[in-house]
Amino acid sequence: VSELRARALAGLPEIRPGDDLAAALAAARGGAGFAAGEVLVVAHKVVSKAEGALRRLAEVQASPRAVEVAERLGGRDPRHVQVVLDEAAEVVRAERGVLIARTRHGFVCANAGVDASNAGEDGVLVTLPRDPDGSARRLRDALAGRPAVVITDSFGRAWRHGQCDVAIGIAGLAPLEDWRGRADAYGRELHATWIAVADQAAAAADLVRGKDARAPAAVLTGLERFVTPDAGPGAAALVRGRDEDLFR
Amino acid sequence: VSELRARALAGLPEIRPGDDLAAALAAARGGAGFAAGEVLVVAHKVVSKAEGALRRLAEVQASPRAVEVAERLGGRDPRHVQVVLDEAAEVVRAERGVLIARTRHGFVCANAGVDASNAGEDGVLVTLPRDPDGSARRLRDALAGRPAVVITDSFGRAWRHGQCDVAIGIAGLAPLEDWRGRADAYGRELHATWIAVADQAAAAADLVRGKDARAPAAVLTGLERFVTPDAGPGAAALVRGRDEDLFR
Repeated sequence: VSELRARALAGLPEIRPGDDLAAALAAARGGAGFAAGEVLVVAHKVVSKAEGALRRLAEVQASPRAVEVAERLGGRDPRHVQVVLDEAAEVVRAERGVLIARTRHGFVCANAGVDASNAGEDGVLVTLPRDPDGSARRLRDALAGRPAVVITDSFGRAWRHGQCDVAIGIAGLAPLEDWRGRADAYGRELHATWIAVADQAAAAADLVRGKDARAPAAVLTGLERFVTPDAGPGAAALVRGRDEDLFR
Repeated sequence: VSELRARALAGLPEIRPGDDLAAALAAARGGAGFAAGEVLVVAHKVVSKAEGALRRLAEVQASPRAVEVAERLGGRDPRHVQVVLDEAAEVVRAERGVLIARTRHGFVCANAGVDASNAGEDGVLVTLPRDPDGSARRLRDALAGRPAVVITDSFGRAWRHGQCDVAIGIAGLAPLEDWRGRADAYGRELHATWIAVADQAAAAADLVRGKDARAPAAVLTGLERFVTPDAGPGAAALVRGRDEDLFR
C-alpha cells in the first residue's frame, strides 16, 4: 500500500543573510543525511533570508502611487505598499483592504509575497526569492543525497477561506502529473485530471510545521514516483500565464 | 517530532446507488477499524454514487440557454451543460472552453463539480453530494471508532496549473486553524496566517491515491490536534461568500 510520510525538520538555527542554508539543513537532518527519493520542503522565508531578499522599511521611499494605494486600502504603511509594488509585475486587485498582485515570477498572491511575519527583525520585510527555481536547484545540488527540493509560500485562494502552502520553487520533483487523455478505472478518458503534485506536497508538509515552531522545513517520503533525476521544469510550470488568466 | 502519515485504503468495491458506503469503508479498513484521532479522506465520487447523485444524459433535456452556452464553449454536449447549469447557483465564467460556476453549496469550480470520469457507466454524470457536510457527518457517525471524515473534490485554481484536492464536506476536523493575531516565532503578530487545514489534508491524501487505482479513500494519522469531539462547522466554513468575492 502506498504511504506518504511527512516529518518536520526541527532544530534549524536562525538564518541570516549570507548563511549557508544547505549546511544548516544538513546539520538539522543529522547524521543520516538525505536520500535521493526524499522530498525536502522548505518555507521560502529561510531561503529569502539566506539570500538577503529583505527590505528595510526605513530605507524605503514611498512613491505617490504607493501613498494612493495605501490610502485606498484603509491606511496601510505606504512604504510596505511600495515594497509590494516593487515586487509586482501587475496589481490584480487593490480593494477592501486586500492587495493582490502578480509577481515578476508570475505568481498571483497577496502583497506579491511580501511579508513581515517571521522576518526576525522589526521594520524588515521578507520578499520572495528572486529565482525560486534556481534557489531550489542550488539547494538540491548542495545537499548530500540530493533530495528533491520544494520551496513554498502560503497563498490564499480566490473563493475559499484560509491559505494553503504551494510550491514556488522546485528541483527534482515533477510539478504536475498529467492524466489528461489517460483512462479512468473504467477505461474512460479522464478529461480534466492534471494534478498539481508539488503544490499538494507543499500542503502536506505544512501540516507538520507549526507557524511559530521555527520548523521551516519538512521531509516527505513516499513520493518517489514523482522524483526525477534531473531538476525538471520547476514551479514555473505551475504558473498560469497572464494570457490564460480569466480573472484579471 | 510531529509526523503525518497517509495511506490509501485499498479494496473498496464498486459503489452503486443505495450501497452502504460506511460498511464498505469499514470492510476495506479490515479488522483493526478506525480510531478517533484518524482522518478518513474520501473522494466525493463514491459518496455521490452511494447517494445516487447521478444524472443520465439520456434523460436530460437541454434548455435554450444550455444550447447557447455549449456552443459558446466550442461544441460541448448541451445536455452536459444543462446538468452543470442545474447544479449552479451562478455561472462565474464561460469562455475559452471553460465553464466555471458557483455551486448551490457556494463552491466555485469547473462545471459546478459535474464530472463524467469514474462514473462507472457511459452517459452518466456524477454531481456533488447535495449536502456534503451532512454526508461527512453521517459517515462519521456510522463508522466504528468515529474517525474525522473529509469528503474531497479536485479543484483547479484561478492562477495556477493543475488541480489540488480540497475539502467539500467535513465532520470532526477543524476546517481552518486561525493564527491571526497570534505571535510568530519572534513575538510579532502573524497577520495573514489562517491555515486551511482540511484542504491541506485533502491534498495530502490525494498524493497516495492513483486516479485509476480504485482507491477513493485514504487514512491520515498525525492530525490529532485538529480533530474535534463534535462535528464542527464543516466545509461550509471554507466557502468565501459571494459578497466577499473579488473575482466574480
